Amino acid sequence: MATVTTQNLIIETAIKLFNEHGTKAVSTNRIADVCSISRGLLHYHFKNKEDIIQTIFSRIDQEMDNDWYDDHKHPNIKYARFMFERQIELILRYSFFYRELYPLLRKDEKLKTHFRLSRKKRETEVRSFFDELIRAGLMVQPKAPASLDSLLRISWLISDQWLLHLELTGVEADATSIREGFSLIYQGFEPFFTPEALAEYQASLTVSG
Amino acid sequence: MATVTTQNLIIETAIKLFNEHGTKAVSTNRIADVCSISRGLLHYHFKNKEDIIQTIFSRIDQEMDNDWYDDHKHPNIKYARFMFERQIELILRYSFFYRELYPLLRKDEKLKTHFRLSRKKRETEVRSFFDELIRAGLMVQPKAPASLDSLLRISWLISDQWLLHLELTGVEADATSIREGFSLIYQGFEPFFTPEALAEYQASLTVSG
Repeated sequence: MATVTTQNLIIETAIKLFNEHGTKAVSTNRIADVCSISRGLLHYHFKNKEDIIQTIFSRIDQEMDNDWYDDHKHPNIKYARFMFERQIELILRYSFFYRELYPLLRKDEKLKTHFRLSRKKRETEVRSFFDELIRAGLMVQPKAPASLDSLLRISWLISDQWLLHLELTGVEADATSIREGFSLIYQGFEPFFTPEALAEYQASLTVSG
Repeated sequence: MATVTTQNLIIETAIKLFNEHGTKAVSTNRIADVCSISRGLLHYHFKNKEDIIQTIFSRIDQEMDNDWYDDHKHPNIKYARFMFERQIELILRYSFFYRELYPLLRKDEKLKTHFRLSRKKRETEVRSFFDELIRAGLMVQPKAPASLDSLLRISWLISDQWLLHLELTGVEADATSIREGFSLIYQGFEPFFTPEALAEYQASLTVSG
């Protein structure tokens, strides 16, 4: 097998096993066994489990880099919903990472540094999107007790935790329950959307649900 | 040592070690060693680590039972802030549990069942508090796009995750950053508080910060 193919196989297999069993229960030896490669070959590519998890996060970050960079070019409410659902789908693909987020970052300084840098980038991108909404006259600057910062912070909390919250309360993650997460974010922003933006959004819902 | 004293010593020690190192890194043997008791004596009291964690959660649940049962008798905004801060203090005392919440519940059905039952009780109690606020004329029934249910759901997400969110973003958990968590919850409810309730709240802030 070519090197890149082997690396990919290891990463794909690790994601699958971690999602199913959690990182604690899955050893690098088990990953090698499921890949049908020798343990030595796995360790040629990845020093240890932390190394594998760091590589998986680099992939997550790369996916977000690819997807998010021009979000601000689509300033409308329907696109905001798309952004939320895209993020939920990403979290579903890498569910182990978000489920174990705090313990993972806590025990790996390198991962924590990378995560925080990535989050700063993401925050800037989301903020640009809302700045554009305001510039386009589709939203007014939120006023006290809310602020754009506080609304965005709540949005992050909900996006990060929504699937876990569903799991915790025993609700299945389906289209309806996922959309409810967006509606929680939406209700904070709604008072600041202009009638024009709301009319456009309502029309888009009638067309495509 | 009397049985209850030994059990307490084990539980107190486990909480301290789990908070410092996470549950994964702390074995029952280490807990016994730090307690200066034999491993046999520990296992006489607790079958395994899961058993210890279940007992710790029973203690958390008991603390909430003791604290929350008459919250609805104090329907005012300042008391709502107290309720939030009390919950944050509890999460600080048992930080490992909330940090590892999802992995812990995922691998222990008994703990998950207990947690969900406890949460249902808590949700009922918090709802009673807000029903009393409305009955006392200090709050009006939230209207679309918000609802009392959705505001409470956001409150739970923020309460559960606020300390972890601070940790994630590298902000120290002090009085100021903790109070910011409450202000995020507050901003959702604020449009539905009556002028009377807001005036009373503002006055209470002037008196005691």
